[in-house]
Amino acid sequence: MSAAVVWQKLGVGGTARAALKRQRPRCLWLTGLPGAGKSTLANLIEHALHERGLHTYLLDGDNIRHGLSADLGFSEADRDENIRRVAEVARLMVDAGLVVIVAFISPYRREREFARSLFAPGDLVEIHVATPLSVCEQRDPKGMYAKARRGDLPDFTGVDGRYEAPENPEIRIDTSDQSLQESLRQILNGLE
Amino acid sequence: MSAAVVWQKLGVGGTARAALKRQRPRCLWLTGLPGAGKSTLANLIEHALHERGLHTYLLDGDNIRHGLSADLGFSEADRDENIRRVAEVARLMVDAGLVVIVAFISPYRREREFARSLFAPGDLVEIHVATPLSVCEQRDPKGMYAKARRGDLPDFTGVDGRYEAPENPEIRIDTSDQSLQESLRQILNGLE
Repeated sequence: MSAAVVWQKLGVGGTARAALKRQRPRCLWLTGLPGAGKSTLANLIEHALHERGLHTYLLDGDNIRHGLSADLGFSEADRDENIRRVAEVARLMVDAGLVVIVAFISPYRREREFARSLFAPGDLVEIHVATPLSVCEQRDPKGMYAKARRGDLPDFTGVDGRYEAPENPEIRIDTSDQSLQESLRQILNGLE
Repeated sequence: MSAAVVWQKLGVGGTARAALKRQRPRCLWLTGLPGAGKSTLANLIEHALHERGLHTYLLDGDNIRHGLSADLGFSEADRDENIRRVAEVARLMVDAGLVVIVAFISPYRREREFARSLFAPGDLVEIHVATPLSVCEQRDPKGMYAKARRGDLPDFTGVDGRYEAPENPEIRIDTSDQSLQESLRQILNGLE
């Protein structure tokens, strides 16, 4: 065996990276309508896990749409490609030993199934933030539903863009009938 | 201030993630011709840093070309897009607190300059694995140079694809006149 081959075998694997962090790397995938509360909950989850000493990262529109997916729009094909890239990055980060929280509408079942296919069984936890459309639209934190109803935002999920709700998510929460703290507790309990 | 706004401010930042890992997150970017020894060195670096308790990750063709960039080929435009994505992922991983090692030919100056532009000054360390072409071609570990010389691998860097050597890399090493251990020591010293 040549020296080069021996050296390459010294490569660090996912198990070693996770062991150094003393945690189980996983991907927590939040899906739901615009305004459902995904980003707020994702931030809460990351904060709670970080406080417990876990090594985390959060992937959402803020850090993906202006960078890795800056070349993509909101057509069905571009949404698919965006979620494909997010899923691949999440996979790399789980391999790096992190607990990765993903917060995207991710409206289509096929793209969430693709994401799941990249992980070992149990390593992707699908969390449906199942706030009803009427509540999301009433909140309308960024005025997007109003804009979409006026016809100024084509393909807006919940208005003229479809949302395919998960059939069997690991966790389902409805933020309209419980406080954020209760939703957070439900998720943290669900992870144990 | 609404409860939602307060909650979102609890988000965990890059500084907190790095503090938990007790390390300075950085991107070590290895560039060089095919066969220069980038992958071997990248594995050695990761192993050495991991042994010292650092939280690392390695991005290379093995985990990028079959996943995130599986849709891309080797034309100039596709190489650019591949490196753009790798740079964006490295930026996210540094934000996650990791020391990220990138090992790609990354032949064009403009794409390496783009990568550098994503990081704070000092956070990207460019390492030119400057093994001469004649040595790389003589080694030809995967028989790629021979294939390219026969005309079976168009756009192969070093043969009919150009390689623009870095002008001012933070570290430059030539694996043809020193052992792998010496090259590794040179890089680790350069990082301190």
